[in-house]
Parts: sequence; C-alpha cells; structure tokens
Amino acid sequence: MTDGRFDRIALIGIGLIGSSIARDVKELGLAKEVVISTRSPETLRRAEELGLGTAYVASAAEAVRGADLVVVSVPVGASEEVARQISPNLKAGAIVTDVGSTKASVIAQMAPHMPQGVHFIPGHPLAGTEKSGPDAGFAGLFRGRWCIFTPLPDTDPQALEKLKAFWTALGSRIDEMDPQHHDKVLAIVSHLPHIIAYNIVGTADDLETVTESEVIKYSASGFRDFTRLAASDPTMWRDVCLHNKDAILEMLARFSEDLAYLQRAIRWGEGDKLFDLFTRTRAVRRSIVEAGQDVDAPDFGRHALDAKK
Amino acid sequence: MTDGRFDRIALIGIGLIGSSIARDVKELGLAKEVVISTRSPETLRRAEELGLGTAYVASAAEAVRGADLVVVSVPVGASEEVARQISPNLKAGAIVTDVGSTKASVIAQMAPHMPQGVHFIPGHPLAGTEKSGPDAGFAGLFRGRWCIFTPLPDTDPQALEKLKAFWTALGSRIDEMDPQHHDKVLAIVSHLPHIIAYNIVGTADDLETVTESEVIKYSASGFRDFTRLAASDPTMWRDVCLHNKDAILEMLARFSEDLAYLQRAIRWGEGDKLFDLFTRTRAVRRSIVEAGQDVDAPDFGRHALDAKK
Repeated sequence: MTDGRFDRIALIGIGLIGSSIARDVKELGLAKEVVISTRSPETLRRAEELGLGTAYVASAAEAVRGADLVVVSVPVGASEEVARQISPNLKAGAIVTDVGSTKASVIAQMAPHMPQGVHFIPGHPLAGTEKSGPDAGFAGLFRGRWCIFTPLPDTDPQALEKLKAFWTALGSRIDEMDPQHHDKVLAIVSHLPHIIAYNIVGTADDLETVTESEVIKYSASGFRDFTRLAASDPTMWRDVCLHNKDAILEMLARFSEDLAYLQRAIRWGEGDKLFDLFTRTRAVRRSIVEAGQDVDAPDFGRHALDAKK
Repeated sequence: MTDGRFDRIALIGIGLIGSSIARDVKELGLAKEVVISTRSPETLRRAEELGLGTAYVASAAEAVRGADLVVVSVPVGASEEVARQISPNLKAGAIVTDVGSTKASVIAQMAPHMPQGVHFIPGHPLAGTEKSGPDAGFAGLFRGRWCIFTPLPDTDPQALEKLKAFWTALGSRIDEMDPQHHDKVLAIVSHLPHIIAYNIVGTADDLETVTESEVIKYSASGFRDFTRLAASDPTMWRDVCLHNKDAILEMLARFSEDLAYLQRAIRWGEGDKLFDLFTRTRAVRRSIVEAGQDVDAPDFGRHALDAKK
C-alpha cells in the first residue's frame, strides 16, 4: 500500500496548510476518515462549516486515537506541547509528521515524546501564501511544489515511502536532506526574505518625512512587492525566528555585511561596483524563471489583474 | 488645446518607458509625427522594426527640431548630456519633460541648458516592470498609475496643463510635489526596495553552505519575490543610486538600524517585539490592497499562472 491512502488521518491544526491538506484529501479520496483538531473553538467550528473533515474534536489527544497518519500543522513553537498531548494515544505503527518551516527545533521538541513503534518523520512542504486560517487554504496548493523530508537515522524506510506517496498524491515533488542543512537552506530562501520584508515595511511605516498615505499611494513602484511577505502570519513567523535562530543570525550577518559594502559604494559613487552586482542578480532571476520556479510575466503578471480593476 | 495632443513629439530614449509612451501615442493618435532617437543603433533599428514612430534619427539634436513636446527617457545619469545636445535646436514654446526616477539631480543637470522660451517640466511616471528595452514596453503601462510633476518656481501654468493633459490621456493619475520631497518619497517606496532586493539576491548568490541550485530550486518560499526587482535594468539603477545618494543613504541608515533591533530581538528570543512588528506590517499590506495599489489575490495571483505550466 504505497498509493498515498490511509484509513484514518488526524489533522492537528487547520490553518492555511492543514486546511489545504484537508481539501486535497477530500477531493482525492485519500482517507476514509479525517479527524480535525485545533486549539481555537472558532477555528474548529469554521473547519466544520467548511466541511473539511469527517470529525471535529477540540482535544488533539482524542483526535489522534486510531489514526494511521497524524499531520501536525501548527506554529513551530507549539510542536512540543502537541507532541506531549498526543503521545499517549498514538496507535502502534502510526506515522506522525509535521509541516514546520524549521526542522532541527521541531525534531528536538517532538522526537523525545514519540512512543516506540510510532514513526515520526519530519517534513516541510514549501508551499503557502501570505494568507492564513482555514478559509485561506485551497486544493492544489502543493501541486508542483517541493516537500522536503528530514528523516531521523532510525526512520523506517517503508513508513517513509508511505508518507512520500501521500505527498506525491497531493502533487508535491519530494526531496530529502538532513535537518541542519534544511534549516540553513530555508534561512536564506525563506526566513531572511520574510524578515527583510517585515523590516522594510516597518521602516517605511515609521518615517516622519514621508507620510504613511504617501507610502501606500506610491507603493507600486517597488515597495508593494515586500508587503506581501510582510503580511504573513505573525505567530508562525515569530516562531520561525525563535526556532531557527542560529541559521537566521548567520544569514542576517552576511546580508548586513553585503549591504554595508553597497552603501559604501553609493556614498563614494562607485558605479562599477553597483553595476556589477545589479547585472549578476539579473542572471539569478533568469535562472529561477528557466527552472520553472516563477512566472516570466512582467510584474508577476500583476498588470493584467491591475487593469481589470 | 488641452486635450493632450501635440503636432510633433520627439522621444529621446526608447526603452521600456519611451516605447510604452510611443505605443500609447500611436494607439490614441496623440501626435501627427513621432520622432524617435536613441544612442544605440541596434535599439533605433528595433524601434523602427516595431513601427513605434514616424521618423528615426540617431542624433538627439536633430530629433528635437520642430518638436512641440520632447520626452527624455534615458538613465538619469545621461540627462545632462542629452540636455546639452538638444538645447541649441529646441523650438521656442516647446515643452521638454523627462521620466527620471530622481528629480533634484535631473533638474540640476538639465535646467541650466534650457533656452529662454522653452518650458522644462520635470516629471516621473511611477510605472514600469523589471523588463527593459523597446520590446518590453506596452500600450497601457501608465493606466491608473501616478505621474508626479516637480515643476520649477517659474514653470508656465499653461504649459504644465498641456503636459498634464498628455499624461492624463495616457491614463495616468497626476500629482505634484517639490523635487526634494519627491526624492525622499521615492527613496523609500522605490529605491530602497530595489537596493535591498539586489542585495539579498547577491548575498544568496555568494553563499558557500547553500548551493546556487538549491537557492533557485526552493526560491518559491519567499526569495523569488525579491528576484523580480533585482532583475531591473542595471544601468538605470546604478544611476538612481548615484543621483539620489543623500535620500537613499538616509533610508538605508534607518533600515539598518531597524534591522539591528530585529536581529537583537531574534538573538535574545524577544518574541513579543517580533510579534508586534509582524502584526503592524500586516496592516500596511491591507491598506495597500484597500487603496487599490495591489491585487488582493494570494501570492500576487501567481498560483493561477504557476498551475498552468
């Protein structure tokens, strides 16, 4: 049975990611039963209104009873608490996985609580939008996107195959790496961009010489691109910052060093240094488009949407 | 005659902006004659192949003879040279404008060369994409976008009205401010975002611990958003950095100060500070979407385009 199907799936957390999984599972018929649990009573009620699962329970501990697959989709800082709650009720042979953006920390938080005979396999689907909550999810979110697994040394290969088959059924492309390397890669491709975006939006918001309404009015000239990432879920991103600290601080240090170099070139009118960098970065964009990792349409194809307004 | 029409328009520079103006002028019938001039012989030939004007001349000095409106669309660092070349041949009563992203520097470069009886009115349409060259332009680029004028104290009100009517005919929304304020506003909404984007792409490109192919492969998790701005024209942006130095250095200093605060909060695990900032920036995004300055579709509506691949 490696077709990605499970008899009973428990989804702990039903935000953008959890609810997208739920929609795919339903649409693709990947499970007979889908038990949904989340801490907030309103969110749980909303999940039920949306018909995302087959059962809705407030307690994570209750939700995982009899489940063959448990997917934990909570802010990474809540991982240990969830692991502690669910561990007594996990079924022998069950697979427990997560979707967290940091892996070393999640492993440190969850692995010690996993009972013998339960397969804990950390995972991270690189998918999402700047929206959050159960209404923000949609079927097909994971299609064509990478899902990275960071298996532990003693991970059961068969269990890993079953989990990979599940994510493949959702349309993901599968990758594997060790947790420390994952955390470094994500620090540069995801965490640093988000932190920089949050920061620049904060800087603009704080200016006295340029009003907030001017910033908003003229934002299409570049600034608005950053506001998308800076609109991402605050709880999720606070936890990412706190739980991938070392890799993030390393990337921030390099970024700041490079920025100081650029700033000096501007101050001293060193046009060649600026031109060299600006030419090099253009090539990176080209590679991303060629690799099919972004659309080639100018302005992300936004002009067509703008014009419709 | 304030319908935005001119008998003869000369376009000096025919890149993304110049060629978009040309396309609009043709489509809307805003001029009887459109004379195009640009430094590069290949670009001039390309403009002719695309049928962007009614005449094509290598010399800017020749191109402006008899023109009622001259639009200079060149990298801001080339403004003085163009002003020097065209000034002897400008017709009395002609309007000369530009589209440069910095205004104090362009005024300092061009105004001293403008003959008596010629109306020099600096302008800046806030429009563009990350693409460049005459093939990148398109009709409708300026529709719904702001065009900011920074008139000089002695600007003739009638000439200003005529120029505003022209840009209004292209679909622009018109604004006016003094050059110094323009340069500060643009430093935060446009120049800083581009510089930061160039910088982070450079940092990622230089890493030893994470390969370039990993950066590209996983770029959809945030990084790719920055690569769009970082793919903008290197010459244009080198010139912007060199010609709006003071305002840019001021914004860079504030950005770095704020980033140091954020970095410290990450190092010391001060989750509340992070959460506060991340919540505040989310509200800025909301204001931009509400003001109609960006699309509300998650991920800039990119998912729909991604899925088509």
